[in-house]
Amino acid sequence: MRQHLHRLTVDTRGKGLTPITRPIVDWVEQSGVDVGLLTLWCRHTSCSLTVQENADPTVRHDIGRFFERLVPEERGRYVHDYEGPDDMPAHLRTMLTDTSMSIPVTEGRPVLGTWQGLYLFEHRAAPHRREIVLHLLGES
Amino acid sequence: MRQHLHRLTVDTRGKGLTPITRPIVDWVEQSGVDVGLLTLWCRHTSCSLTVQENADPTVRHDIGRFFERLVPEERGRYVHDYEGPDDMPAHLRTMLTDTSMSIPVTEGRPVLGTWQGLYLFEHRAAPHRREIVLHLLGES
Amino acid sequence: MRQHLHRLTVDTRGKGLTPITRPIVDWVEQSGVDVGLLTLWCRHTSCSLTVQENADPTVRHDIGRFFERLVPEERGRYVHDYEGPDDMPAHLRTMLTDTSMSIPVTEGRPVLGTWQGLYLFEHRAAPHRREIVLHLLGES
Repeated sequence: MRQHLHRLTVDTRGKGLTPITRPIVDWVEQSGVDVGLLTLWCRHTSCSLTVQENADPTVRHDIGRFFERLVPEERGRYVHDYEGPDDMPAHLRTMLTDTSMSIPVTEGRPVLGTWQGLYLFEHRAAPHRREIVLHLLGES
Repeated sequence: MRQHLHRLTVDTRGKGLTPITRPIVDWVEQSGVDVGLLTLWCRHTSCSLTVQENADPTVRHDIGRFFERLVPEERGRYVHDYEGPDDMPAHLRTMLTDTSMSIPVTEGRPVLGTWQGLYLFEHRAAPHRREIVLHLLGES
Repeated sequence: MRQHLHRLTVDTRGKGLTPITRPIVDWVEQSGVDVGLLTLWCRHTSCSLTVQENADPTVRHDIGRFFERLVPEERGRYVHDYEGPDDMPAHLRTMLTDTSMSIPVTEGRPVLGTWQGLYLFEHRAAPHRREIVLHLLGES
């Protein structure tokens, strides 16, 4: 049993989902691990991880609109707004989605379903450089 | 340290919570692992995992009503509706709950609290056959 | 590769976030593990785990207000209310946040980002004694 670690850097373009399946699957394949456990940790409180349908781009559009409504950016609604109207909503949207995720690996790949894609969900309006730590434990 | 893998199939009856604690605890017991880490991964984007009170059926009723209100199925609200009005709400309810879950194991059992039960939360109106991958790492 | 287990007891003062980063980081450091995987499991269905900004106390205030609005405690809204108006909302707020969390460990510490703090999120109005199971797998 061996451990592998990697820091994945993701440059976002402001609010929305950035696909991260490809670099993660590639890294798992390069590790040589056949059976194991992959864990992702997002090192921020204003962006998060999520699993979503990987086929239709309108899904991502609807997700954006839904979260705008669920966690509104109304002026005066939050005390914490040092960094602008998207500051506190970004923290709340992070809480409602995922910061960590663990996925079994078999035959050298995470066991994602046919329609599952991994995404970084940016909640700030401005582009950011984000960091996800990948941990893989397993046997070759 | 050894790894164990299992694919658990769950047949749902449409929207709502299906208890999965029993087959999961049984599988952990049969593995012979005394101390370890159990990870569940749900291979879909329109159903999810959750932990809930295992005693009172009215809890499940209230959960259903709450999510109907939180993520409404209003016509025209979503662009992505190929598979019907429950299509996009199913993706959103999945994002708001869990796709993966990791539970320590001691004395041959997951360390669930007295009132905790594990559930598959189906978000589609029609019955579906669902798959959860179980990964167990530990020592006998 | 070795496993370490610990039961962390947290006394809450009713609704709100109790910081738990310090006792968790201390325990990881004492374990002697240099590289590994830390998993937290909250053994309840009316409180949960979350990651949040660790600097500004107004963030916690805004979180409280947001969840009061998102999951209202209106009389007559829920069938399940044996333990009072905060009973069912506590279960729902638990579902919307986290019960388990897995964090890679490097250089003897969980890889939390600069602004990330770990919290127990109490959803009941009365103070409670809560239990979190910590599982650490790794190498010294």
